Amino acid sequence: MKNQISKAVISRLPRYYRYLRELIDQGVERISSEELSRLMKATASQIRQDLNHFGGFGQQGYGYNVKSLYKEIGNILGVEQAHNIIVLGAGNLGRALVKYNGFSQHGFNFCSLFDVDEALCGKSVNGIGIRPINEVDDYVRSHEIDIAALTIPMDKAREMSTLLYDAGIRYFWNFTNIDLQLPDDAIVKDVHLLDSLLELSYRICNAK
Amino acid sequence: MKNQISKAVISRLPRYYRYLRELIDQGVERISSEELSRLMKATASQIRQDLNHFGGFGQQGYGYNVKSLYKEIGNILGVEQAHNIIVLGAGNLGRALVKYNGFSQHGFNFCSLFDVDEALCGKSVNGIGIRPINEVDDYVRSHEIDIAALTIPMDKAREMSTLLYDAGIRYFWNFTNIDLQLPDDAIVKDVHLLDSLLELSYRICNAK
Repeated sequence: MKNQISKAVISRLPRYYRYLRELIDQGVERISSEELSRLMKATASQIRQDLNHFGGFGQQGYGYNVKSLYKEIGNILGVEQAHNIIVLGAGNLGRALVKYNGFSQHGFNFCSLFDVDEALCGKSVNGIGIRPINEVDDYVRSHEIDIAALTIPMDKAREMSTLLYDAGIRYFWNFTNIDLQLPDDAIVKDVHLLDSLLELSYRICNAK
Repeated sequence: MKNQISKAVISRLPRYYRYLRELIDQGVERISSEELSRLMKATASQIRQDLNHFGGFGQQGYGYNVKSLYKEIGNILGVEQAHNIIVLGAGNLGRALVKYNGFSQHGFNFCSLFDVDEALCGKSVNGIGIRPINEVDDYVRSHEIDIAALTIPMDKAREMSTLLYDAGIRYFWNFTNIDLQLPDDAIVKDVHLLDSLLELSYRICNAK
């Protein structure tokens, strides 16, 4: 059944997960789809539809048990699984990702950084070693790596992502200002920071 | 006319802008909607529809003039305008944003960082000063600030965004792991990093 869930629903799951975490922190034990809808600014019917994909947590007249639903969505999202990540680019952004402690509690382990700058290699950030970029192919082939985060200059992004794909990586977290061009079985989540700034710029310039 | 452009089209403009920049760098002078469609993995009819919003750049049998289209979309996105940004939170991510040099060339000026940590205040990152967070209200009221980037812990995010809104900020670049709750005339672009990782996690756990 899980494989039938649409991309749109999947992309909304982390948001449910965040709101449920907040409700738990506030001591809320159960919530109706109407209350959740007001909170999340989505329609109650969409919420019911989305959550129905995962079986019958909601009970008429009772609503959802917040903790059960949080745990179930967490399971679906795989937060109990460990996922190994390497980061290409040990610049400011790459280092910031590795230093942020909010990822590890959800099972994401940063295993290594890679950089072209030889002066950085051998050093470590938050206990994570920096290796020369020309070792990344061997590293990926000899370790179980799930995700590659790309924080390298965009003129190297496609070449490096293809190399990583050929070495076996299928999941990419792309911070470069370019779309990767990979075979269809590669899953890429883009974080195009400049795109979001440019959208804000548009809105500023076109405000009434 | 510009105000009639849908949010969906606006959100696609930065992507056109990136691809056109690439084409310019490759020396391409003109491109048909069909070629652009193969490159961008969108349908040619969507591309024609999107670009028609901005007047008649495309010519039957000739295609689009890459440089003109790039310049025009840049104008629409406001890249020739200066936009002033403050960053709340001088941690790893806040500092990485300020250090990245890819934003300034599109008119984005980082004016100040703010942090609760008094030991950081008075220091500077990439020439941008760090000020105490309790000065941010006065600062916003006495400077022309367009955008506030939030890289603070999520338990302070809503309180601080409301304070900034009351001081006049309407555009928010939200990196906190929480949705802000602001009046409807606030424009928020979220960069929920954990959400995108969790989506990858889901895909890994549900791969065939």
